[in-house]
Amino acid sequence: MTKPLWDGRLSTQLDQEFSKFQNSISFDIRLAPHDVQGSLAHAEMLVAQGILNEAEGKAIIDGLCEILATKEWELRADEVASCEDIHSAIELLLKTKIGSIARKLHTGRSRNDQVATDFRLYVKECCQKHIACLQALRRAFLNDAEYHLTSRAGKVAVLAGYTHLQLAQPLHLSHWYMAHYEIFSRDEHRFVAALNLMDECPLGAAALGGTSWPIDRHMTAQKLSFRAPMKNSLDAVSSRDFVTDYLHAAASLVTNLSRLAEDLIIYSTSEFGFVRLPDRFSTGSSIMPQKKNPDFCELTRAKAGRVYGHLVGTFAVLKALPSAYNKDLQEDKEAVFDVFDTVQPLLGLWTRMLPEIQWNLSVMYDRAGNEFSSATELADELSRLGLPFRDAYQVVGKMVGHCHERSLKFEDLTSEELTSFHPALKKHLLGKISVDQILESRTSFGASGTQQITEAIERVKESAD
Amino acid sequence: MTKPLWDGRLSTQLDQEFSKFQNSISFDIRLAPHDVQGSLAHAEMLVAQGILNEAEGKAIIDGLCEILATKEWELRADEVASCEDIHSAIELLLKTKIGSIARKLHTGRSRNDQVATDFRLYVKECCQKHIACLQALRRAFLNDAEYHLTSRAGKVAVLAGYTHLQLAQPLHLSHWYMAHYEIFSRDEHRFVAALNLMDECPLGAAALGGTSWPIDRHMTAQKLSFRAPMKNSLDAVSSRDFVTDYLHAAASLVTNLSRLAEDLIIYSTSEFGFVRLPDRFSTGSSIMPQKKNPDFCELTRAKAGRVYGHLVGTFAVLKALPSAYNKDLQEDKEAVFDVFDTVQPLLGLWTRMLPEIQWNLSVMYDRAGNEFSSATELADELSRLGLPFRDAYQVVGKMVGHCHERSLKFEDLTSEELTSFHPALKKHLLGKISVDQILESRTSFGASGTQQITEAIERVKESAD
Amino acid sequence: MTKPLWDGRLSTQLDQEFSKFQNSISFDIRLAPHDVQGSLAHAEMLVAQGILNEAEGKAIIDGLCEILATKEWELRADEVASCEDIHSAIELLLKTKIGSIARKLHTGRSRNDQVATDFRLYVKECCQKHIACLQALRRAFLNDAEYHLTSRAGKVAVLAGYTHLQLAQPLHLSHWYMAHYEIFSRDEHRFVAALNLMDECPLGAAALGGTSWPIDRHMTAQKLSFRAPMKNSLDAVSSRDFVTDYLHAAASLVTNLSRLAEDLIIYSTSEFGFVRLPDRFSTGSSIMPQKKNPDFCELTRAKAGRVYGHLVGTFAVLKALPSAYNKDLQEDKEAVFDVFDTVQPLLGLWTRMLPEIQWNLSVMYDRAGNEFSSATELADELSRLGLPFRDAYQVVGKMVGHCHERSLKFEDLTSEELTSFHPALKKHLLGKISVDQILESRTSFGASGTQQITEAIERVKESAD
Amino acid sequence: MTKPLWDGRLSTQLDQEFSKFQNSISFDIRLAPHDVQGSLAHAEMLVAQGILNEAEGKAIIDGLCEILATKEWELRADEVASCEDIHSAIELLLKTKIGSIARKLHTGRSRNDQVATDFRLYVKECCQKHIACLQALRRAFLNDAEYHLTSRAGKVAVLAGYTHLQLAQPLHLSHWYMAHYEIFSRDEHRFVAALNLMDECPLGAAALGGTSWPIDRHMTAQKLSFRAPMKNSLDAVSSRDFVTDYLHAAASLVTNLSRLAEDLIIYSTSEFGFVRLPDRFSTGSSIMPQKKNPDFCELTRAKAGRVYGHLVGTFAVLKALPSAYNKDLQEDKEAVFDVFDTVQPLLGLWTRMLPEIQWNLSVMYDRAGNEFSSATELADELSRLGLPFRDAYQVVGKMVGHCHERSLKFEDLTSEELTSFHPALKKHLLGKISVDQILESRTSFGASGTQQITEAIERVKESAD
Repeated sequence: MTKPLWDGRLSTQLDQEFSKFQNSISFDIRLAPHDVQGSLAHAEMLVAQGILNEAEGKAIIDGLCEILATKEWELRADEVASCEDIHSAIELLLKTKIGSIARKLHTGRSRNDQVATDFRLYVKECCQKHIACLQALRRAFLNDAEYHLTSRAGKVAVLAGYTHLQLAQPLHLSHWYMAHYEIFSRDEHRFVAALNLMDECPLGAAALGGTSWPIDRHMTAQKLSFRAPMKNSLDAVSSRDFVTDYLHAAASLVTNLSRLAEDLIIYSTSEFGFVRLPDRFSTGSSIMPQKKNPDFCELTRAKAGRVYGHLVGTFAVLKALPSAYNKDLQEDKEAVFDVFDTVQPLLGLWTRMLPEIQWNLSVMYDRAGNEFSSATELADELSRLGLPFRDAYQVVGKMVGHCHERSLKFEDLTSEELTSFHPALKKHLLGKISVDQILESRTSFGASGTQQITEAIERVKESAD
Repeated sequence: MTKPLWDGRLSTQLDQEFSKFQNSISFDIRLAPHDVQGSLAHAEMLVAQGILNEAEGKAIIDGLCEILATKEWELRADEVASCEDIHSAIELLLKTKIGSIARKLHTGRSRNDQVATDFRLYVKECCQKHIACLQALRRAFLNDAEYHLTSRAGKVAVLAGYTHLQLAQPLHLSHWYMAHYEIFSRDEHRFVAALNLMDECPLGAAALGGTSWPIDRHMTAQKLSFRAPMKNSLDAVSSRDFVTDYLHAAASLVTNLSRLAEDLIIYSTSEFGFVRLPDRFSTGSSIMPQKKNPDFCELTRAKAGRVYGHLVGTFAVLKALPSAYNKDLQEDKEAVFDVFDTVQPLLGLWTRMLPEIQWNLSVMYDRAGNEFSSATELADELSRLGLPFRDAYQVVGKMVGHCHERSLKFEDLTSEELTSFHPALKKHLLGKISVDQILESRTSFGASGTQQITEAIERVKESAD
Repeated sequence: MTKPLWDGRLSTQLDQEFSKFQNSISFDIRLAPHDVQGSLAHAEMLVAQGILNEAEGKAIIDGLCEILATKEWELRADEVASCEDIHSAIELLLKTKIGSIARKLHTGRSRNDQVATDFRLYVKECCQKHIACLQALRRAFLNDAEYHLTSRAGKVAVLAGYTHLQLAQPLHLSHWYMAHYEIFSRDEHRFVAALNLMDECPLGAAALGGTSWPIDRHMTAQKLSFRAPMKNSLDAVSSRDFVTDYLHAAASLVTNLSRLAEDLIIYSTSEFGFVRLPDRFSTGSSIMPQKKNPDFCELTRAKAGRVYGHLVGTFAVLKALPSAYNKDLQEDKEAVFDVFDTVQPLLGLWTRMLPEIQWNLSVMYDRAGNEFSSATELADELSRLGLPFRDAYQVVGKMVGHCHERSLKFEDLTSEELTSFHPALKKHLLGKISVDQILESRTSFGASGTQQITEAIERVKESAD
Repeated sequence: MTKPLWDGRLSTQLDQEFSKFQNSISFDIRLAPHDVQGSLAHAEMLVAQGILNEAEGKAIIDGLCEILATKEWELRADEVASCEDIHSAIELLLKTKIGSIARKLHTGRSRNDQVATDFRLYVKECCQKHIACLQALRRAFLNDAEYHLTSRAGKVAVLAGYTHLQLAQPLHLSHWYMAHYEIFSRDEHRFVAALNLMDECPLGAAALGGTSWPIDRHMTAQKLSFRAPMKNSLDAVSSRDFVTDYLHAAASLVTNLSRLAEDLIIYSTSEFGFVRLPDRFSTGSSIMPQKKNPDFCELTRAKAGRVYGHLVGTFAVLKALPSAYNKDLQEDKEAVFDVFDTVQPLLGLWTRMLPEIQWNLSVMYDRAGNEFSSATELADELSRLGLPFRDAYQVVGKMVGHCHERSLKFEDLTSEELTSFHPALKKHLLGKISVDQILESRTSFGASGTQQITEAIERVKESAD
């Protein structure tokens, strides 16, 4: 075990099992590049401020650059693994390379601000990567929305719309795609907002109160691409709200993915039969030779639970901690690492899977016209003839009940039967409520009508977004 | 039991216990004013679009205005309580008042978009109220920061700064106040961001696909003070991310409040003795006559758990729901109501309690100079004489160990003893590391030095906020 | 505002808003009967031990009995509402009734042990009530299992069994019922286990260290129907693991209910068409006249999230609390109250709803034979002819692929085609894999075969359980 | 990538990234020994039932034994890593070793029952290991309780007892130890209860409906040391309540550990100064040479949050899953693995750390007599003279207020001053309320009096427990 940075004060060797338990190197190794970058910015600033002289600065900076370029922490994995944490490890690598000048690097900083800086750099990167992937995902939804808006062989792509998982009304399939475009826009927005709020640099806050060294925190912040240094050193080392902000944005995203997945799991049952998921994203059974399972959708659904756990677990870690650094804060990282490793592949896979989905348009079209899905429209038509909507609703409700008991469709009713429900109910009204008519007639802003969706797609394509 | 809106289709009366179980009126009554406002905007639009004629419109609008003005849902609480939900209740009140014209109000809308609109109006209001309170809370921190920066009777207000709850370094008490100013600025920012993202109006999305009535969603959005209508009707009735955004902002806020509370619980122990909490915010024991307990801080701490529960519970409710409305969404409201009722009084009470806190400045000053709290400064001083910081750290570490064993302070060491640790260690160095010196010397941006805090306060006061 | 019990020590009146914020009377009023029972047992013991004389004891006991019998806390609701908590309220009622002798009741106890006792009594009751309801629920499953095992009009009640929501194998519908019988047996067991673990009485632990009064804790424990007094006074007032045990048992139960509900939501879609849920437990739409929604199942599903929130919220409240009573513990109650109010009606409603479910047996039978649901059996048959199962699996897998592409069923294949997949594949093998055959052939213990289910039902009925 | 078990049915190769995403081998490798054990039991049963002949059985069993003995999955890690999951991996290893006879092993089972069996074996083992460690931990508490009960150099080991973190009453330090003995007894009990409830074997449930092979599930259950086979095959493959039971027991345990840790964090501040934690379990700072931090306690505290996250995350995964296996269930394992890796070292480390704690008994003794910690006793004494306790409480409350304002102790009051509070207040009463007197006088069952603790320790030592 390599000596810890704080060797000297305490009298005995650490208990070995405790040492293993408390060391963070097994996971914070992931922050290695960020730690080196942070040290580079710090060293350059120390030189600029005359705290290190040019020669010292050059040695340290060249050493760090080499470590970064060769990913030396990977090359000398054993030495690194024997350190307490990534900060100690990088300092050790540097010392081995350039000798005791390395011992000047830690001037005017503490591990408290160092780890806060490393981790902010890392979480910012997570946000940026998710944002890029979300843009691609949204483009995939947009492409499919556009594709399915064009009728093919005279058939529009219709999705039976459900509420309570009971057939409600026919929708353009494109409308479903555009809904997800909107939904994931907000998820993207959440990562952008989180990124903005965390975009201040803690470096230079030192242990908790800043330092008497004449450091230039604006310089280090700028070098590390932060908008500004954090304004209060105590806040800088205490706060991990940037972590929960990230986890929350992720939790919101996986919630929405889980709902998308659920739609497709249901649509891909043979009973619904709306969609055939790509074989390349499905698996079989070890015992049932006929099975093809929507594993990707199921895993997506499950991952939501995983992310919720990390979010609330992290909140519980932070709850009621005293000001400034407490060792509890070490527990902030693995949650983020696991969530990133969960979310980033999910985004990539969904973006690649979506275009491979095959919709069974004719089944969908037939389905969308079933189960009295035009009942709302019929009530609306009646209402347009002067009935209060509530009354029209009740008339149609009775018709549905009547037909349901007798296994009839609206079209099966005779003119006499129709007028028995209400005098205004004429046969020709039924002609106005075909699936195609409904799709055309939905003209309210944001509705599932052809024109509205066309405009929605145009708007999105025009906007720089 | 009043007949439900959907009476007609289903064959039997609801099971009475089920009816009680599924009704939401017991809690969504809270949305009464928002429901009426939504209906008002809808009715005015229906008139403007010619869907209702002037006379119908006038009757409905006058009726709704009267209901709103007299809070009629309170006056006729029994009738209201017998309804399924607030939407049915308001429609019933209106019908009783103006007769069957009321049955025209529901034209071109559904409860699905209606409840989404009501609840967005409500949650927006929650955000706005919290934001106003957070501004007051931050002002309270700022006032105290400013107050305590001025020395009184030659004594500065010093807070012993801790990490790991072990004494670390002396801080200006004002620095602690300004840290919280910063922390709660971000919490305020979170509510602002949530508010912005939810500021689009679902009204007119109808059941899920919009409507064939020529409604004007921009008009209703504007009348209800939304930035714009939501762009996709399916998204509009499906999505509850605005709920989890609110709950997350609240969870972050209570986390920070719980940490503030923990500081004060610890500072107010007789062992620390830093602070005397106001009697008006403390309670006693039923059996121990001497007790004075920091109940308010303890309850604040506990409330964090409560809010976490609501956040993760709501995420779990939303997970894997199919598109569009599902009854599960009815479970989104009570979490918000309870969180609002938790957070809003917390903010008000903290703002009023803060100025009544009495710090025991002389205890704090003495304490801040203890436990070798100047050790970092001493290492820095040594380091300024040319030692690498790591070496200086080890020299001082040994000094601390030496003194600790012998129950000595740094000042107790003779010149000989000092130089035995390192030749550069001269007695006069110790003069540079008094508590007062340390507070002056911390000049890095955002540090706990007098000048830095002065500037921080100035910056904040100058900025428009 | 009635004076708090601890009036005297602190100098000022409580801040009014804080008082409202910290009072628990608005919810712990629910513990009124338990508080009186606890006081009764305490008073009887004080008399038995000679700490109160007979006259004092009689006055107090008679007073308490009257309060309990008349539910006086309801009769004098205003006075009660002005108290800090239920303990103060009951003492006030008693004092009003019997005068200052009431002031002797609190001898040798504290609110710390009092509230722990009250709340244990309450949570024990919750467990007992759930256990009784779970027994009824399981009986309902058993009844339906038995009912559906008998063929009717020559048709067995078959459920298409799914994995990954893709058709897997035919099952007896009774098997599905018996699975739930087993599942909810474990849930019942959890409440029994929780009940046993919490069945020790904290009364007499006083503030935290017991008392110097010669109280008899075994007597009070016995009078309150606890197995024994708790063995350590500090543990007695500190611990709330009985709360999280209860919440966990509830969380497990609602998870299982949510899965049951999900099955029925899916089975009741018109696409599956397996089940018709009773109208009395369904609702309609405010705009779509044709809708019948499985609200009860959806609400059941959602309630799971709600309970998870309370479980984790309570854990977060308890985390890292110092030993003994902290005000945070006041936050333990509302979670339990809400969970009880959620779970108890759920159990009752499910028990009453289950027998009203109507299965569409002919749809189910047809469905169960589709989608190559016999493929596993066919592979087993082939395997019985000597092929390793893995090879048989692959043969049948290819058959399925072949048929799937050509929209054929196994029966459509000619003898030649069959043998082209494997020489052993003879036409007569297909006869062995009809739905009815499969149901008969599943003879392994616990399997979905007729005989196994018959035996399972017999076993359950015989056992006293 | 090794071919999956279900190769044949689906038309294309898996998407490579998806394959990586969905494979579980990276973590379920941990179930390797359990998977082999399960297969061994299955194979022996197949032979016993004549489903495999002796030669086939011998080949398979010998092969499996060799794999188990050599941990072949470690030796051939690359091949294993290319498999989908541990079940495929073991089958592959077996096939490589014994050829195509290996393909007969999967007769009459599915991965669905296989993984359920493997994982139950694993979780049972986790419970057993924790139970053993908890016994050791409790013994450590008992030892220390016993040790500190003996006065040393005439001084008893007294702990100032707190409520609300405000000094309440003096306790025997041993009482604190025995409280934890009790607390962790319940935690042990929880693992025992969970273990009992999960002690039934799913093997033979096959995909979901059992099998037509004449397997003997009682035999496999017995060979794998389960109490019995699970009674319903659908339940057997669906249910994961044994996972949440384990996670809950762990959550309860870490909650209690976090509270223990919090006590010690506070007691080890220099302000309290009660305890010196062993250097071997503490760390220092990278910048502050004087620091010694209670890292182990802080990490313990934080781990509670981590476990809560896994518990609620797993519940959320399970919520509303349809019956039988869904791929979501794959997400059940990592939570358990991480919780085991968290809890098991915690238990070991606490057991080893506890005896190394050094209490500062003289500081503790002094402290315990401060802050009017005898006020309850004084009120009790007054009450024994005939005053109702409430009145006695108020008299002493006023005394405390009086003394507090004037910085006096009770002993500082003159006889005149005493009687001015109440005529019965004589000077000699104060003699009865010394710390030592209080410790002797607490004679109620389970109290913090010397005799009670002595008896408690005796009881525990006598019981077989």
